[in-house]
This record gives sequence, C-alpha cells and structure tokens, in this order.
Amino acid sequence: MRISALAAAADLPVATVKYYLREGLLPPGAASSATQATYDDRHLQRLRLIRALIGTVGLSVDHTRQILKLVDEPGDDLYRTLGSAIDVLPPQGAAPRDDADPYPRARAALAALGRTPDPAFSATAQLEAALAAAEAGGLPIDDDRLRVYGEMTARLAAFDLDHLPADHGAAVEYAVLGTALHEPVLLALRRLAHQQVALELRSGLGRNLSTHRRTES
Amino acid sequence: MRISALAAAADLPVATVKYYLREGLLPPGAASSATQATYDDRHLQRLRLIRALIGTVGLSVDHTRQILKLVDEPGDDLYRTLGSAIDVLPPQGAAPRDDADPYPRARAALAALGRTPDPAFSATAQLEAALAAAEAGGLPIDDDRLRVYGEMTARLAAFDLDHLPADHGAAVEYAVLGTALHEPVLLALRRLAHQQVALELRSGLGRNLSTHRRTES
Repeated sequence: MRISALAAAADLPVATVKYYLREGLLPPGAASSATQATYDDRHLQRLRLIRALIGTVGLSVDHTRQILKLVDEPGDDLYRTLGSAIDVLPPQGAAPRDDADPYPRARAALAALGRTPDPAFSATAQLEAALAAAEAGGLPIDDDRLRVYGEMTARLAAFDLDHLPADHGAAVEYAVLGTALHEPVLLALRRLAHQQVALELRSGLGRNLSTHRRTES
Repeated sequence: MRISALAAAADLPVATVKYYLREGLLPPGAASSATQATYDDRHLQRLRLIRALIGTVGLSVDHTRQILKLVDEPGDDLYRTLGSAIDVLPPQGAAPRDDADPYPRARAALAALGRTPDPAFSATAQLEAALAAAEAGGLPIDDDRLRVYGEMTARLAAFDLDHLPADHGAAVEYAVLGTALHEPVLLALRRLAHQQVALELRSGLGRNLSTHRRTES
C-alpha cells in the first residue's frame, strides 16, 4: 500500500507517518519508483505500536525508539530484555544507585516476601522511593500490608506472565503495553473497590441499625 | 510551644509554617501576648498531615485545603466523604460527565464484577479512561484479566478498609494517605513481581535445558 493508505489504516495523518519515518521509528517501505514506496502489514503493525507508545502511553520519541529496538532485537535473555524495556517507562528518575546499600527498604521488603532484589532494574529504586514516601507521609507499609500487597502482586504477575507471547519481540511489546496500559486500570479498580467496600459497610450499618430498632420496638 | 519549636518538631522552616497559617491550612495558636502565640500537639499533628499532603504527595495548597476541610468536617455519611476526599487526588481531569451513558466501558466492567458503579466519583471516569486507553493501545482488558484484577483489588480494599480508623476525620486522613502513598508501592511491587516470575521462568528454562543436555549425553 501507499503511504496515504498506510496512514489511513493506522488512523494517523500522513505527516505524522512521515515524521516517524524520518525519526527512524518506522522502517522505510520498498521503493516502487524514484518518488514512491510501498508498505505492507508489518509497517501497519509497527505503526500501531508506535501510536500506542507515543499517543496512548505518552512516551517520547527517544523512549519509543529504545523500546522498538528491544522489540526488534530481544536477544536470548528475555528476563534482562523485559526488565530493560520496563525501565524505559515512567516513573523516571528512579535510576539505580551505586551506594553500598542503596535500597535498604526495598531490600528488606523483598527479602520478607522471599523475592530476589535486582538493583539493575529501576523498579527496585521505584519501590525504595515509594516506601520512603509512605514512611515520610506517616503511613508506612507494615508487615501485614506488605504480605497482602506482595501476595496480590505475585498473583497478578503470574497471570500476566501466563499470557506472555512465546515470540520474544511480541513478549517485549506485551510487557511494555501491559505495564503502561494496565497499571492505570488496576489503580482505578482499586479505588472503586474501596468505594464498593465502603458502600457495603454503609449498607451493613444501615441494616444493623434497622434490626436494632426492630428489636427495640 | 512557640512557633519555632513547632516548626522544628515538624522538621519544617518557620517561614513555611507561617505560610500555612496565612493560607488557613493550620489554625492559629492561642495568643499568649500581643505578638506571640502558643501551639499544642494538635497543631503539630495537623502540620505533619499538611507536610505529607503537600511535601510528600505533592498536592497543591487548594487541594490540601479541600482535604483538610473533609478531615475536620467529615459529616455522617463517611462513604460520600471518603469518595469526595479521594476525588481530590490525581489523576485530575477525570471529572464526572453528564452524558446519558458517559462511562460505557466502566459500567460494563463493574457490572461484570458485581460492583455498583457510582458516576459521582471520579474513579469511575478514571476507569473509563484507562479501559479506553488499553483498547486504543491494542491490549484491551479481556474478561479473564478483569476477573483477576477485580478479585485482587477487592481483597486489597477489604484489607485496607479493615484497618480504617473508627473516627471519621482519622478515616479521611487514612484513606487519602493510603491511596496517595500506597498506590506507588503497589505498582512498584507489581513490576518487581513480574521480574521475579520472569526470573523463575528463566531459571526453570535453564534447568530444563540442562536436564535435556544430560539426557542426550
């Protein structure tokens, strides 16, 4: 297909597709004449991924390029590659540190959960920052809460990884999009679950009060 | 105590404490002379909450004022009050809409989970936006995933609400700080759980490969 058809299929302006070509995010099409190129379904698929990463997730062109490189060249060590791809996602600024003991809270929490800390990945720094903020804000994560959060996230992760595509490139896509797109769903569902439980408590209290009144009358 | 002692106890500069007084976030102390006031432990407690909301969570002075008002005047309907307090937290811009069916995805998802949608709270709009983004990004939430996420968030909510303080004002504080400070912990733990499962898969694969090689030799 021509670039106009490709752009239409991806629901993007032609100028945007040309920009992605110039930035090297989208590989060039096959030259069909001196001034024209044709594109195939792989281009469309890649364009949809770029649109998701830039348009939906909100990544920069540079961060998108880093992720596409990992999709194209995932290598043999999928564990490292998935970790590197997730590291590109926000929250930024949680770069691994060099201290002797850079993440004391994260290390202790992961040890309590029987997990293996890997300071190479920024999620360890992210956990340290989150635990420090909870402490500073006066609502630290105690052992009971850590256990519950740890168990729930382990189950979520087992479910997510069960659905990991076998192809390594596709696995990188899935991990990146699943993290970036599903985290907001999870947080919204948790807030709504709080509401639901609060609503049930209110109804329960209402019922108890009625029962109480009936008993008295 | 004097304002200098109060500031020191809260680990804040005196100028910041004066600013919170001017903004009405911190109630005035008892006048001990024409130019001096004394403060007590309730001032210190309030100052620590303000510090958590502004300094740690990153709320604006206006949003902090809204939450403090709900802490001070929680009213009788704790369900509504907790919802209103959580609504002040980011993500902003998820204001309730007026359409006939403003949140089709959220409504369907909550119905599937047996929960009661409440469009008065912005978490419903937040869920709609998150589900729409997952769809647009090419990784929609299917029924299996919704069920797992729904179940896990319900358990987390039950745990959180079990620890809700009986006092309504304290409950508002707990709900706001628990949402703002514990969401990042949860997301970091989920990312690390993904890593852990991926690591176990890698080790498992390694073992299988070794076994395979030994069988062949």
